[in-house]
Amino acid sequence: MNFSHTFIPTLREVPGDAVIASHRLMFRAGMIRKLSNGLFAYLPLGLRSFRKVENIIREEMNAIGSLEIKPTVVVPGELWKESGRWDAMGDALLRVKNRQGADFVVSPTAEEAFTGIVRDELSSYRQLPLSLYQINTKYRDEIRPRYGVMRGREFVMKDAYSYHCDDESLDEHYQAQGRAYRRIFKRCGLTVIPVKADSGAMGGSGSEEFMVESEVGDNTLLLCKSCDYAANVEKAECKLDYSPRFSQEMADRAAENIPPMEKIDTPNVKTIDELCTFLETDAKSFVKTLIYRAVNVELDLSKAPGCEKLAKHKASPGAPETYPEAFFAVAIRGDLDVNEVKLAAVLKASEVALASDADVERITAAPVGFAGPVGLPAAPVLLDQTVTGMNDAVTGALEKDRHYIHACYGRDFNAWLTADVRTVKAGDFCPVCGGELYEKKGNELGHIFKLGRKYTRSMGVSYLDENGKSHVPTMGCYGIGLDRTLASIIEEHHDEQGIVWPVSSAPFHVIIVPIKYQGQVKDVCNALAAELETAGLEVLLDDRDERAGVKFNDADLIGIPWRIVVGDKNLAAVSSGGTPAPKVELKRRSEKEAHLADLDKAAAEIAEDVRACLAC
Amino acid sequence: MNFSHTFIPTLREVPGDAVIASHRLMFRAGMIRKLSNGLFAYLPLGLRSFRKVENIIREEMNAIGSLEIKPTVVVPGELWKESGRWDAMGDALLRVKNRQGADFVVSPTAEEAFTGIVRDELSSYRQLPLSLYQINTKYRDEIRPRYGVMRGREFVMKDAYSYHCDDESLDEHYQAQGRAYRRIFKRCGLTVIPVKADSGAMGGSGSEEFMVESEVGDNTLLLCKSCDYAANVEKAECKLDYSPRFSQEMADRAAENIPPMEKIDTPNVKTIDELCTFLETDAKSFVKTLIYRAVNVELDLSKAPGCEKLAKHKASPGAPETYPEAFFAVAIRGDLDVNEVKLAAVLKASEVALASDADVERITAAPVGFAGPVGLPAAPVLLDQTVTGMNDAVTGALEKDRHYIHACYGRDFNAWLTADVRTVKAGDFCPVCGGELYEKKGNELGHIFKLGRKYTRSMGVSYLDENGKSHVPTMGCYGIGLDRTLASIIEEHHDEQGIVWPVSSAPFHVIIVPIKYQGQVKDVCNALAAELETAGLEVLLDDRDERAGVKFNDADLIGIPWRIVVGDKNLAAVSSGGTPAPKVELKRRSEKEAHLADLDKAAAEIAEDVRACLAC
Repeated sequence: MNFSHTFIPTLREVPGDAVIASHRLMFRAGMIRKLSNGLFAYLPLGLRSFRKVENIIREEMNAIGSLEIKPTVVVPGELWKESGRWDAMGDALLRVKNRQGADFVVSPTAEEAFTGIVRDELSSYRQLPLSLYQINTKYRDEIRPRYGVMRGREFVMKDAYSYHCDDESLDEHYQAQGRAYRRIFKRCGLTVIPVKADSGAMGGSGSEEFMVESEVGDNTLLLCKSCDYAANVEKAECKLDYSPRFSQEMADRAAENIPPMEKIDTPNVKTIDELCTFLETDAKSFVKTLIYRAVNVELDLSKAPGCEKLAKHKASPGAPETYPEAFFAVAIRGDLDVNEVKLAAVLKASEVALASDADVERITAAPVGFAGPVGLPAAPVLLDQTVTGMNDAVTGALEKDRHYIHACYGRDFNAWLTADVRTVKAGDFCPVCGGELYEKKGNELGHIFKLGRKYTRSMGVSYLDENGKSHVPTMGCYGIGLDRTLASIIEEHHDEQGIVWPVSSAPFHVIIVPIKYQGQVKDVCNALAAELETAGLEVLLDDRDERAGVKFNDADLIGIPWRIVVGDKNLAAVSSGGTPAPKVELKRRSEKEAHLADLDKAAAEIAEDVRACLAC
Repeated sequence: MNFSHTFIPTLREVPGDAVIASHRLMFRAGMIRKLSNGLFAYLPLGLRSFRKVENIIREEMNAIGSLEIKPTVVVPGELWKESGRWDAMGDALLRVKNRQGADFVVSPTAEEAFTGIVRDELSSYRQLPLSLYQINTKYRDEIRPRYGVMRGREFVMKDAYSYHCDDESLDEHYQAQGRAYRRIFKRCGLTVIPVKADSGAMGGSGSEEFMVESEVGDNTLLLCKSCDYAANVEKAECKLDYSPRFSQEMADRAAENIPPMEKIDTPNVKTIDELCTFLETDAKSFVKTLIYRAVNVELDLSKAPGCEKLAKHKASPGAPETYPEAFFAVAIRGDLDVNEVKLAAVLKASEVALASDADVERITAAPVGFAGPVGLPAAPVLLDQTVTGMNDAVTGALEKDRHYIHACYGRDFNAWLTADVRTVKAGDFCPVCGGELYEKKGNELGHIFKLGRKYTRSMGVSYLDENGKSHVPTMGCYGIGLDRTLASIIEEHHDEQGIVWPVSSAPFHVIIVPIKYQGQVKDVCNALAAELETAGLEVLLDDRDERAGVKFNDADLIGIPWRIVVGDKNLAAVSSGGTPAPKVELKRRSEKEAHLADLDKAAAEIAEDVRACLAC
């Protein structure tokens, strides 16, 4: 295709809000334009690369037997009410009322739409397993869209959903999806960090995120220096530096060796640091206790202290029964932080947050700052597992300016529930091998997830087994964001001058740059383009009436893998024997140096390389 | 692909609301399922055909140099306010407020989004002409969606927009689009009726609709029995059966020969029929006068009777100045009807409708039923051109139970404006050749349209010419509905048993039906499938454990162009010379009779036919 026949509005300037390379370069290379905050239009060059990524994903999905369908983008709100997510999703869900007052959703994800279709068609176990996918427009009403298409409001996602008779079948397809995802990212030239939901030490994983490193990533990852453990901080575990088990024997010995618990005055001591100074000890000896408010708690609280008056209710027909609000005292070793995502998971709550001062004072019967697990009747005490290894601790005494010292777990206080709710950080130890963990920022490109029967149950899906007995199928979901994947390719493949496309997602394979597009040079360029296109390559011919420097800069900016420069001087080259030996200059975008090639061999050299790149 | 590996839930029953063949068959063949009223999901089989249509359209757009881009589906309401359509579009526009209270639109069409992009990039005449298109999701909040995907709420449209320096360039691309549309429909196997906005007799056409005949069509078409004139009733013209010009000479002669106008009593006469009986004349002698209320009238009314107090205003910044409301007396020959679309076009009004009884009484100063063009001061009189040929007419006298007789145009009454506002109907005469017109119902699949500078002007688009002078570019738009095109293919290609796909849009080219998928038959089926796929064909192998009858019925229902039946009997065939000559049965879906073919020649025969079909 001739440059003058397409529409590639390259720019020298960078938009002010473009802080990451992919945003800057997609804008400057004329790949995208902004329609509004978080809404981007792909121009012809951008769309070509977008379609390459789309096709790689489609091929890999088809290869594992997932079947493409196309539901609508706007889906009935009724389905979301059945699943319970109409209420649960919050404001990121773009809700629409049509002219007749019916509720609709501009889909951010499609568990409901797919499960609604499958529900109506499924009757027999013989129809399972069934894996369906779409590559379609999604919308998420982000409060702060940024980084170009990396975090836009409207985006395209491949989302697949699979339905199975049993866990073995689900696991088999889940593994196949995981392998397909690895192939997709490899073909795109992306270095991804697969992050499992748990360390695998507990037996099997139900979720895996595919991350790319990014300085502006939404996610903090913990990686092990010694093994391939990688985890999202939201779920990361670590090796306990205290014993995680505290047996009766240990408690007995502690009770013998540790002085009795004692309440002391700690006047004007406000922070843990001040307390450590005051007591000449360190934060690891302190049991920090925080009061949390949790919303929509599914965990059974019927026997929990202070929860006698709570009753469960259903937020919507498809939702599980939950307690709308409950308070918890969460105790953790003083040098550590509570991870609210892990805490919410333990409580099966939709949301947790620190309680208000008023609620803290009501529950602890003391000013803020003196909470502790000893003798607290007004809320269930949840101990992080680090606390179960503490047998001579300092903690708040539920009185102003008073603390306990020599507090022993098992002797002086107990847990209503013990769990791992600690935020893991760099320097902690790998839960698998004990190596040191370090941190990286990452962006999630894809996610595979065993959903189980959450949606199939709430939406009433069933099938009959070979004996005519009815069962609820189990389900998995598997998503990849296309726009993010494309932007991440640019993040990983660019230099000072512009994009450095891998062949697989390049908008064109070759750019032909004539020094001046006229006379013999023009004829040679046209013939080369025709030869390359006949060989199946995608060619951009820069036929513009611009200075060579402008054309070279644009070629570097838009980052086509191969560049052929055609000029009179090299075409007039003569062999050492004196016969004409016309040459052209070839250069890979990824390499610094160009080399001369015989005109009649140039196309073949490039075609062979492109084919080799696409095959791997 | 094996039938058991895909998801084709065929059905015997027909959904109750499916009144047209394509809706019934797409549902029964497992191509689509309904998510909600007007919202359909394409299942794998349906999506395969959908993609074929999509690719045909993409290829033809690319071939005429239109460039594909991908704006968002959800677009900023701001752009629609600039163009004035935020207000003008009415309730069919799905408007959305996001969490921050900003206005958005789920796009029903994309003049605004494309023009917004072009506005920011366009600077020089050298960038023009520019033609851009998208194939993307659209939404129109239909009050009564029906006929399956033929008139859904969400649908996919190819919409192209072109920008030009001058009318010649626009016309050139408009003609190229027209040719591309003809090729698209031909490749899809569709018989379309191209309908121009005007007869061409007035010089050039700015709009062409591509219709398919349909008993449930939204549009009424007028076609000529003698030439290829075809028009939408909304715009159809016809040959005047009275002289369209009434010269002063004729008026003088009329004044000489026709008795003076006379006011007569017509007691208890309510209808034109009663009046005709009463006066012993026919409806063609009657000047019927209707009072219309028009909204947002752009036509200049500063000198129109009764409009002295009206003032123009702007509904929104991008909208033209209009009169919010105005009333008109529209007079037409008594046997004819006023075409409100033509009337609105003449008045440049966004809407026209018969005035209320109260308004009629106010304007005519008489009860409803006695309006007439003679001596009416309170509203501009618009005469249909038929009235200018009437020189001895009966008409209302603006008094209860009184009419004029012997009323002459030019002598007794005149027009403020004369125009063609008549509804053309079957039996009228072709405006081009005078032949008789007949009616058909049709559905619009595509539309090409010269927009001129409506959007470029209201949205402030400009470019500099070679002399540095600023101009507003002119614009064209070109749309095709993909879902409708697909459904129309089925409407035109089906029989009692199911769909009869043309090769170009068939989900598969060949279906292989083993009598029983086991032993030698299975091996032969697998080998045939592999051979056909190697030849580039798309093969569905019905490997299900079903009775042959069930498989034959499904094959007919889903309508694959070629069927190969493989059974032990034909495989055991022996030549007349006594050597084994295994055979299989081949059948085109479009033909009644099957024939036997040598097993080793079957694939080649089909491959050759499929290739020939795709080439044409």
